Amino acid sequence: MATNEGKYSTVHYRNYLKLDKILSAQNLRSEVQEENAAHDEMLFIIVHQTYELWFKQIIHELQSVVKLFTMEKVDEKTIGNSIIRLERVVDIQKILIDQIGIMETMTPLDFLDFRKYLFPASGFQSFQFRKIENLLGLETPQRMTYNGCPYSSVFSPEKEEELMQLEKDTSLFEAMEGWLERTPFLKLGSFNFLEEYKKAVGRMLDTEKKAIKSSEYLTEHEVEMRIKMLEGTDNYFGVVLDKEKYLKMQETGEIRMSYEATISALFINLYRDEPILHLPYKLLMCMIEIDDALTTWRYRHAQMVLRMLGNKMGTGGSSGHTYLNATAQKHMIFKDLHNISTLLIPRSEIPKLPESLEKQLSYYYTNQ
Amino acid sequence: MATNEGKYSTVHYRNYLKLDKILSAQNLRSEVQEENAAHDEMLFIIVHQTYELWFKQIIHELQSVVKLFTMEKVDEKTIGNSIIRLERVVDIQKILIDQIGIMETMTPLDFLDFRKYLFPASGFQSFQFRKIENLLGLETPQRMTYNGCPYSSVFSPEKEEELMQLEKDTSLFEAMEGWLERTPFLKLGSFNFLEEYKKAVGRMLDTEKKAIKSSEYLTEHEVEMRIKMLEGTDNYFGVVLDKEKYLKMQETGEIRMSYEATISALFINLYRDEPILHLPYKLLMCMIEIDDALTTWRYRHAQMVLRMLGNKMGTGGSSGHTYLNATAQKHMIFKDLHNISTLLIPRSEIPKLPESLEKQLSYYYTNQ
Amino acid sequence: MATNEGKYSTVHYRNYLKLDKILSAQNLRSEVQEENAAHDEMLFIIVHQTYELWFKQIIHELQSVVKLFTMEKVDEKTIGNSIIRLERVVDIQKILIDQIGIMETMTPLDFLDFRKYLFPASGFQSFQFRKIENLLGLETPQRMTYNGCPYSSVFSPEKEEELMQLEKDTSLFEAMEGWLERTPFLKLGSFNFLEEYKKAVGRMLDTEKKAIKSSEYLTEHEVEMRIKMLEGTDNYFGVVLDKEKYLKMQETGEIRMSYEATISALFINLYRDEPILHLPYKLLMCMIEIDDALTTWRYRHAQMVLRMLGNKMGTGGSSGHTYLNATAQKHMIFKDLHNISTLLIPRSEIPKLPESLEKQLSYYYTNQ
Amino acid sequence: MATNEGKYSTVHYRNYLKLDKILSAQNLRSEVQEENAAHDEMLFIIVHQTYELWFKQIIHELQSVVKLFTMEKVDEKTIGNSIIRLERVVDIQKILIDQIGIMETMTPLDFLDFRKYLFPASGFQSFQFRKIENLLGLETPQRMTYNGCPYSSVFSPEKEEELMQLEKDTSLFEAMEGWLERTPFLKLGSFNFLEEYKKAVGRMLDTEKKAIKSSEYLTEHEVEMRIKMLEGTDNYFGVVLDKEKYLKMQETGEIRMSYEATISALFINLYRDEPILHLPYKLLMCMIEIDDALTTWRYRHAQMVLRMLGNKMGTGGSSGHTYLNATAQKHMIFKDLHNISTLLIPRSEIPKLPESLEKQLSYYYTNQ
Repeated sequence: MATNEGKYSTVHYRNYLKLDKILSAQNLRSEVQEENAAHDEMLFIIVHQTYELWFKQIIHELQSVVKLFTMEKVDEKTIGNSIIRLERVVDIQKILIDQIGIMETMTPLDFLDFRKYLFPASGFQSFQFRKIENLLGLETPQRMTYNGCPYSSVFSPEKEEELMQLEKDTSLFEAMEGWLERTPFLKLGSFNFLEEYKKAVGRMLDTEKKAIKSSEYLTEHEVEMRIKMLEGTDNYFGVVLDKEKYLKMQETGEIRMSYEATISALFINLYRDEPILHLPYKLLMCMIEIDDALTTWRYRHAQMVLRMLGNKMGTGGSSGHTYLNATAQKHMIFKDLHNISTLLIPRSEIPKLPESLEKQLSYYYTNQ
Repeated sequence: MATNEGKYSTVHYRNYLKLDKILSAQNLRSEVQEENAAHDEMLFIIVHQTYELWFKQIIHELQSVVKLFTMEKVDEKTIGNSIIRLERVVDIQKILIDQIGIMETMTPLDFLDFRKYLFPASGFQSFQFRKIENLLGLETPQRMTYNGCPYSSVFSPEKEEELMQLEKDTSLFEAMEGWLERTPFLKLGSFNFLEEYKKAVGRMLDTEKKAIKSSEYLTEHEVEMRIKMLEGTDNYFGVVLDKEKYLKMQETGEIRMSYEATISALFINLYRDEPILHLPYKLLMCMIEIDDALTTWRYRHAQMVLRMLGNKMGTGGSSGHTYLNATAQKHMIFKDLHNISTLLIPRSEIPKLPESLEKQLSYYYTNQ
Repeated sequence: MATNEGKYSTVHYRNYLKLDKILSAQNLRSEVQEENAAHDEMLFIIVHQTYELWFKQIIHELQSVVKLFTMEKVDEKTIGNSIIRLERVVDIQKILIDQIGIMETMTPLDFLDFRKYLFPASGFQSFQFRKIENLLGLETPQRMTYNGCPYSSVFSPEKEEELMQLEKDTSLFEAMEGWLERTPFLKLGSFNFLEEYKKAVGRMLDTEKKAIKSSEYLTEHEVEMRIKMLEGTDNYFGVVLDKEKYLKMQETGEIRMSYEATISALFINLYRDEPILHLPYKLLMCMIEIDDALTTWRYRHAQMVLRMLGNKMGTGGSSGHTYLNATAQKHMIFKDLHNISTLLIPRSEIPKLPESLEKQLSYYYTNQ
Repeated sequence: MATNEGKYSTVHYRNYLKLDKILSAQNLRSEVQEENAAHDEMLFIIVHQTYELWFKQIIHELQSVVKLFTMEKVDEKTIGNSIIRLERVVDIQKILIDQIGIMETMTPLDFLDFRKYLFPASGFQSFQFRKIENLLGLETPQRMTYNGCPYSSVFSPEKEEELMQLEKDTSLFEAMEGWLERTPFLKLGSFNFLEEYKKAVGRMLDTEKKAIKSSEYLTEHEVEMRIKMLEGTDNYFGVVLDKEKYLKMQETGEIRMSYEATISALFINLYRDEPILHLPYKLLMCMIEIDDALTTWRYRHAQMVLRMLGNKMGTGGSSGHTYLNATAQKHMIFKDLHNISTLLIPRSEIPKLPESLEKQLSYYYTNQ
């Protein structure tokens, strides 16, 4: 039995959380270099430190999900757990977005009180942020250069190496693509999904075209407009219904995801009411939400920089606002999943699954 | 083909949304009664109107879910759709909570500019809010009286009647309780869940007790404290493991949910990693989240009233802040689901399911 | 004394809020045209109706502020009240942004269940939204066309007329510009602000340049980069310090706000610590925050449309996502206020105000 | 000129933020003690670490504000800066509240995977949180005991000492009380505020009483109710209008703030439209918002603990949910400022300030 001296030898909140490290990591450079510290430098440091802590958590989640999906057998437990973890990533991203509002409580003048001490440090030097981008699957050719140099040039050689390796390793994008390609749903039984879907699209477009042309209520302009819309949609269907066209668009870089993965994602989207597809559908939605939240964060970040600096250059030498805004426009990762929406057709038009297939997509105990 | 005159005869945003009705429904009483309208009365009206619109949406969702769960066959599609709808309710509740912040941009002095015109109208007269409470399953005996009268006395006789009927109709609480009682999971195969769980709890408590008593690192005080904790937990387990004790607590009103439903909810919580239990688990979580969000809203509402009025009486004659705060403490509906957490044991201690049962709880196609 | 019959003749919550109108304004078109209503059309309608209610509130606030600022005497009470109202607008905008998340709980497939009934209605037909844009001061030439037609062409002739009139009336932008031009701060006493500021900027740039060139710690690349940065900043200062250059940039449309207003805004930003300038500074911040929130809403709106429709055309015939995204990039209104940040210099470099001027910028009672 | 070797000798993001410390401070105890780390322990640690970082920031702001207000001369610059900092505290508190949602993504079962390794560590051992409570001005007698011991007994003797000292030092509550007592507004000129206010209250109550009694539209019950309300209000006014009654209530602990501070706060609330009172009013609002946000956080925290543990005891040995919920009910600090609302009267009834006093409350330059 321990004596009272042991009181602090067992786990204490302070030790468990390593608060001695965490709470001694705020060294204001304005304090070192001037008589009076700039009051707001503390905020600047702490906001960034919380960002980095959350980045670590996001990396922890993304790595675990990629690992689960690259194991030989991806079972349903995997999907359920992955959803919980990816939804958590989205929740964390919302905090990251809201924290920009905290940073904005610092006025530009208060920032200028210590900005000079930061050169040439810059948010572009956040290693963990680059790691997240690579884990998600941002491709290097998509990346913008930074002062004319590759994004990885601001890191030490070892860190640069680590980023290069991450580019080669399986990303979340690739893990999901692989999983979609392997899904058994398309190969169950004798149902030819693509054929049936093609017919349904044709029927739908025909009926709609006739309805528009014979409508008493539409003006000429409206008829024209709606026919034009239908034809636009038609074109896009054409690409997916014709693998060769698809592969050509993939070559130009307009599409990234493999043909098989796209068809599988379409199937999941159309038949998501089937019990077995609920979770896979949810999983695809997670990817879209992570992408959207990352893009929103980029925009809000760009806005904050504009508010703080106007058109001044960033401390790292970037064009600041303009650079960040451009990444928001270009750095979407799961665009192909967003595009699935273009291919959806109303429930009433979706080809009915044969009973035998429906059984396969349901639970065991209900079918014995 | 319609002529251009038809331009506005087809669906226009304005007509579709009945904006003529919606946007002409703000009659400031301060404008009717005084030379100058009180500027902030507009805000007061519009905030309340958006609340009522959202209440209508919540009712729409809750009614649809109750209906789905009282149909003869609750299939897995039902559960998936219900989750989507209940999660939507939670998202709406978050907006409702945030809108309190909008109301708080009105200062107490600005409120006093038109408060006198509101007597004796009061938020207690929101019929839809009472309807939501009844749909969720708030029981009348739990309800506080209002100026010494029942909550329904502020409505017209027909509306009063409607509320009485709702009290008798199946609520979400009852629908869920019924569904839990009917779940087939407990009756699958020869696995005696309750027996195995009882043994596991016993084993766990024993091991833990021994570990504590023989620990070199704990102080006497700590040992005592942890043993006390274990015994508290033990008591609670005892209630659930002994149906008679449970029924006695149910009689006193401490527990509301039926014994069978509780055991079923416990099973779902413990084995939620099984594919078939993912969605049922999520569904139970939805109920907890709706309850928590409603409680948070009640607290925030009470805070806002305190800020606006201090200890002044409400326009409807209630004690304002105090009344609202008390409802937040007392009006929890799914407390029994919260309490399931008390009964959970570490994964390593959970009795392993027999293989045959695990198969039943998985998808068909993986087991053929 | 009224009898009990009078119970509902006095103000009742239901009548005060015109709930009979509000809650009967949800006519699902899918219900009229099909056997089974599409469950999610209710959400679609209610979200839009709450948007329109909030738009009405925003218009109420903006109009009141413009009115206050176009009165002959803008006193300090005006500024305080305007800030409360504009901050409220920002708070409402945050709700509008969050509500997009509610809309996103509707899946693309659920939307397709009733989308066909909406043609050709479209959010582009929201009159109040256009009104808000005009009240804020969005200029017509900045606006994108819509199917090749002006934005106002989707409204009835009277509504079109009203929008045209609003374009001519004083907007918030113009009201603020006028107020900035009239501020007395620049004309108080004999202090030549612009002259002193020019010197301070020169001094600051010189010192900084020297420090960079003589630094032992910077690499050649860093020196080059930082000198380049300084020169970029220098150019921008040049424009403001030289009225002719400024007017030329104004002609090209790169700058919108008048020279006098810009100088005044700069003064307020630099000397915001003076008691009298606290509220004016806060007021300028409000404008920036409204602008940022509107831009964020546009982006989120574009994201939601992409998620819902992919590349399908909007129901009103627009290109949907692409159009909305473009408005987010182009429709900033108070960009000139954002750019003030470019001109700020560290507090230590800001020219000190003469004591007589400081007195003028403080409260009366402290100086008698 | 530095060579390229100096690349990392100057400020780098990683060094500036001490990321080596920050990102190496996550030691999962489940990793040390078991083969497989519990995945969610990372989240548990990181959430708490971000909390502690934000606590440090809140302390930084609160200390700076208390310091500003305890300096000999509290000038208007002080008030403006204090508002910015206290509003920032409120913004941070919102993040803290939202982060509870992140923690709730961890399910009770996942928590049980590592909970046993935490004993006897507990959130009650957060030194910084106690420091915040003391800085705000929470009084020790208000505090609940913890396992029958004072709140400070879980810390080392030095830390305990520090908390004791903080209890003696000037808190935000006391700093504000002192500032209110010293405000010059009540002593300006010959205007007897309290006398005039007393008359106004009397007039208001009389007129209202007559109007109620002679109303044709009210039922007997309504008349009774409204007269009762008036009398309740009357009583409360009585306390403030009679210093002796006030002091008696202060003795019983029902009121904490000094009589002079209360009258001063009332004056600021009633005349907040005067330019000079805008910022003081805003400052009082900040205190109320900090208090409300802290209370909301306590409630949400209690909810989360209930969800995670049900009725299990906390790792530190507290009663968990029940304890936390009780602190939310009892630990309000600025209740006296909330109560000012009780004393407000409609603008039309507020005694008009003499012209000479109005001049004193305005800016210098407008009155010369």
